[in-house]
Amino acid sequence: MGKKPLAGPLLSNINSPDDLKKLPPEQLQQVCDELRTFIIDVVSVYGGHFGASLGVVELTTALHYVYNSPYDKIVWDVGHQAYGHKILTGRRDQFHTNRKLNGLSGFPKRSESEHDAFGVGHSSTSISAALGMAVANDLSKEDRKVIAVIGDGAMTGGQAFEALNNAGAMKSDVLVVLNDNNMSIDPNVGALKEYLADVTSSRTFNKFRDEVYDMLGHFKAAGHKMRKVASRLESAMTAALTPGSLFRSLGFKYYGPVDGHDVSGLRKTLEDLKEVKGPKLLHIVTVKGKGFAPAEKEQTKWHAQSSPFDKITGDSLKPKSKKKSAPKYQDVFGEALVQLAEKNEDIVSMTPAMPSGSSLWPMMNAFPDRAFDVGIAEQHAVTFAAGLAAQGKKAFCAIYSTFLQRGFDQLVHDVAIQKLPVVFCIDRAGVVGADGPTHHGAYDISYMRSIPNLVISSPLNEQDLRDMMFTASSYDEAAWAIRYPRGASTGMEVRDGFEGIEIGKGICLREGEEIAVLSFGPIGKYVTKASEMLQNEGIEIGHYDMRFAKPLDTELLDQICDNYQHIITLEDGARLGGFGSAVAEYLAEKEQAPSVKILGIPDEIIEHGTQEELHQMMGIDVTGIVKTVKSYVSNAEHVF
Amino acid sequence: MGKKPLAGPLLSNINSPDDLKKLPPEQLQQVCDELRTFIIDVVSVYGGHFGASLGVVELTTALHYVYNSPYDKIVWDVGHQAYGHKILTGRRDQFHTNRKLNGLSGFPKRSESEHDAFGVGHSSTSISAALGMAVANDLSKEDRKVIAVIGDGAMTGGQAFEALNNAGAMKSDVLVVLNDNNMSIDPNVGALKEYLADVTSSRTFNKFRDEVYDMLGHFKAAGHKMRKVASRLESAMTAALTPGSLFRSLGFKYYGPVDGHDVSGLRKTLEDLKEVKGPKLLHIVTVKGKGFAPAEKEQTKWHAQSSPFDKITGDSLKPKSKKKSAPKYQDVFGEALVQLAEKNEDIVSMTPAMPSGSSLWPMMNAFPDRAFDVGIAEQHAVTFAAGLAAQGKKAFCAIYSTFLQRGFDQLVHDVAIQKLPVVFCIDRAGVVGADGPTHHGAYDISYMRSIPNLVISSPLNEQDLRDMMFTASSYDEAAWAIRYPRGASTGMEVRDGFEGIEIGKGICLREGEEIAVLSFGPIGKYVTKASEMLQNEGIEIGHYDMRFAKPLDTELLDQICDNYQHIITLEDGARLGGFGSAVAEYLAEKEQAPSVKILGIPDEIIEHGTQEELHQMMGIDVTGIVKTVKSYVSNAEHVF
Repeated sequence: MGKKPLAGPLLSNINSPDDLKKLPPEQLQQVCDELRTFIIDVVSVYGGHFGASLGVVELTTALHYVYNSPYDKIVWDVGHQAYGHKILTGRRDQFHTNRKLNGLSGFPKRSESEHDAFGVGHSSTSISAALGMAVANDLSKEDRKVIAVIGDGAMTGGQAFEALNNAGAMKSDVLVVLNDNNMSIDPNVGALKEYLADVTSSRTFNKFRDEVYDMLGHFKAAGHKMRKVASRLESAMTAALTPGSLFRSLGFKYYGPVDGHDVSGLRKTLEDLKEVKGPKLLHIVTVKGKGFAPAEKEQTKWHAQSSPFDKITGDSLKPKSKKKSAPKYQDVFGEALVQLAEKNEDIVSMTPAMPSGSSLWPMMNAFPDRAFDVGIAEQHAVTFAAGLAAQGKKAFCAIYSTFLQRGFDQLVHDVAIQKLPVVFCIDRAGVVGADGPTHHGAYDISYMRSIPNLVISSPLNEQDLRDMMFTASSYDEAAWAIRYPRGASTGMEVRDGFEGIEIGKGICLREGEEIAVLSFGPIGKYVTKASEMLQNEGIEIGHYDMRFAKPLDTELLDQICDNYQHIITLEDGARLGGFGSAVAEYLAEKEQAPSVKILGIPDEIIEHGTQEELHQMMGIDVTGIVKTVKSYVSNAEHVF
Repeated sequence: MGKKPLAGPLLSNINSPDDLKKLPPEQLQQVCDELRTFIIDVVSVYGGHFGASLGVVELTTALHYVYNSPYDKIVWDVGHQAYGHKILTGRRDQFHTNRKLNGLSGFPKRSESEHDAFGVGHSSTSISAALGMAVANDLSKEDRKVIAVIGDGAMTGGQAFEALNNAGAMKSDVLVVLNDNNMSIDPNVGALKEYLADVTSSRTFNKFRDEVYDMLGHFKAAGHKMRKVASRLESAMTAALTPGSLFRSLGFKYYGPVDGHDVSGLRKTLEDLKEVKGPKLLHIVTVKGKGFAPAEKEQTKWHAQSSPFDKITGDSLKPKSKKKSAPKYQDVFGEALVQLAEKNEDIVSMTPAMPSGSSLWPMMNAFPDRAFDVGIAEQHAVTFAAGLAAQGKKAFCAIYSTFLQRGFDQLVHDVAIQKLPVVFCIDRAGVVGADGPTHHGAYDISYMRSIPNLVISSPLNEQDLRDMMFTASSYDEAAWAIRYPRGASTGMEVRDGFEGIEIGKGICLREGEEIAVLSFGPIGKYVTKASEMLQNEGIEIGHYDMRFAKPLDTELLDQICDNYQHIITLEDGARLGGFGSAVAEYLAEKEQAPSVKILGIPDEIIEHGTQEELHQMMGIDVTGIVKTVKSYVSNAEHVF
């Protein structure tokens, strides 16, 4: 993977914010240049999120120069903008382990450093957390400063608004830095974006302001009454013509917009703001990917890079495989959706700011009027889908497992209670790998299973995903959730077209003796391999692809109970309350039933690592299954 | 309960919006008067939510006069403002069954009437739903109008902002009517409230505006250049001085504020707005409880009334019981919190807009600096609590079970992953009665149980609630959720002070033979009664108050397994994934274990009715328990 990158002369001596503070202000620009180079050097070799951190190099440097972390608290919204922060706070030498198993987290993490004031992975939480800290501060009569750094994309999330509304009415001392790069992961959408663009593309606007002030000057020369009115007019004009009235409406003092790449200017502004009490917002304008030409040009593509690339041209250094690789599940979804939408004009689709991540682009290109990026707005996305469904449209809501957590109440209240047949295509279900705990889709089966009027299914492979989507597209009895993991599908030959599947029915993939493994979703592939390995050792297990966590195939379960002594359930989801739990609940009432061993994500926070590493650690990979099966064989040898 | 109220001469002939439209505009005020009288007459006898509907009598009448429901779609945010809507749309004669078992729902409900465009119970969903309908409309090339009516309190919910941001950037035709009464259930809080108050208390403001325009007139008389500048100045001033810049910032055309009790003015304004395309917001100012003096005066008290009252004085007509009644669980919480806070100065508390409903008032009065009403902002409430906890404060987050659904992601992402020891006091857990499906706290055990670093407990009675709060107040290992139902506690004698309880330990209340009932929470009271009744018939059942759904008392469970053949679990929560499910999961691995019958809320939407009626319907009351026990006795008679 190449040798460990070296930092520049100034950066290599910065092991804490205190070291940074020893430098004269004139050297800060050089620190920024070295920091940017170091991030590019490391990420080009080791991968990682990218653009966001390059955009805030100057802000990061200025913040750590002016404020006194860890006493002062800096909360980084979303958090993958925090690479520079990690490097300046003593983690430079570990930075190449970023997002690797046992390495640094890709996000701020309280247990990793005292400088990481608050863990963040999902967006729009920083102002709430910062306000909590500021209030704690007031109560403890401490004079620490609290700063939330939030992007313009994250600012569209409803929670950010809730927090602004609350903070704006309180006296606590919070600085919100709005990092405006007009780009969340995908191009930012919504009225707020347009508003900020108006504010920042303000040449005409500034000229007009100058004219008005000029005119007011003439006025003041006039009589007393005129002067009085003019003076009041001036206050009103200042309020009206300073951008940021949106934030001032919410009780914040507004400053900016200022150039977010001028470290010297930022430093001075932040120093001034230290003296301003109460809730205040500094609006800075930055370029995502700043300083790395390919990233500045194609911001979405360079949001995250997981494989090595040439740090000048941006070309991938990954050896090109001649083998055609299996498509990602998300792309199988994206292609199938377009094919279904071609035949059924009622089909519409929406994503909360993840058209790339969820592969909604094909639909947005093919049917721009029927596919919607609603912004970072998960609650809205779900109810918006329900509104469309209430008018007879077939809404496919494409959403990550952990992001649907944000729309959970809407799933219950707006969809399920009203029995509206929205289809949820839940991507990133199961452990996601390098993004770690905030993004592992561990809980969706558990949090959905208790909701009435909701079908919960997961395909074994890409063909099943297509067929589930097809079947769901004409099912109007209830809502339907289809969950699938991050990453590649099986690579199987997929037949043309679609076939309907029977709702609530599992299938037997292999009959066996004594032990049956019941799998839910693509993780069933491990069972196929495990059963082959076990067969070589003379152990014949049954394998059932249950397909539905709800409704459960109780008829098939009854058969399995008649034919096996032990059931092992397997899912890439939380052990508690999930698919295995459903099986256990059903069997619990029986007077005589096989034992059930539930394999899944254990009841603890799972850190980052590759999906394979994590599956192995949790004992839900091929080896884990083999081991569990054998534990029954040896335990029960006298029975066999 | 008194005789069925009669409607006035005009109202008694309105059986649909078409009947209303036959009247000349001059008669609309009389319709409003009769409608208001009818609502007061019915609610004073039968109970119900109150203030909100009185406040929108004129709006309701004007909307149904101008628009063409059900073709046009009116979405009522929160929904208990929709009494007038129900009465005008053919449900006048059923209105006295409002909120009763098998009667009308207290909220709009799609299955109840074609005029109820969208079900609503929780707040801040209407704009999302309306936008979905408007987009469906565009796709189907229909010319129907879509109107969302939302209060200023609901407007603080993040979802409303997400929806405004999305709608403001689209071209779809949506009218948002902002019903500004400066009062959600409790006095509305936050910056938005102050902003709206500024906008509407605008005498000074208007005078200033007049002066400015006057001055601009003088200007225009001057030379060409001055005229040009003045003209641009005028546009800027119009923008700056018309209130509503907040909404205009988000891409909405803004109209108002107008008097929401002038039905003639409203009618004309709505007719004009029918011609305006795109997203637009009409700001109306109303008085909650309008027309009923006691309700205008004490708005929080009159938000909802469940018992009959004198319709002139507002005095309760409920016969006064001489017996001292048992305190509500929420009040036990409220009092205990103050007592704990007196001894532990780190304790802080917050509620999302429910200081009355959650009984946070005692804490807010005793420690105004340490108790926070954060507005209708559940997501923010949870992360705000996490921010306080990150700084060492002991945050008690008081929240209803279904409202915590709104903060579910924050519970996972900001609290559990970071292992922050926030205490959630979850009120309205279990069926809530008259509020019905949107408010039944059915899912909390299920949606929380899969989350790591979270203790889940429920008290059998008010003393246990106090002791659980006390124990949680000094527990720093993880977060802790304590759930309790709506309504009265047991009325037991409560000892002074607090005692610690052992975490994860249940207790045996009664030993028995063959059959053990394991209960979770106050619903255990039914088991106590059932076991006494069964004892009279010679059936001795065991009864265990498990106290914790997580961690589960597996030691006690092992003992129970050794001593009983059948387990019945009981909870006032969803059968799927809840407490009983936890028991089933644990027992599933055992080779030999008792059967487990899970009693709880079945997997369907439970309608409204009293708590007792619903418990009976679901078979989780005394009779249901007795019946379930007897089914085992008769089934297994040969075994006994």
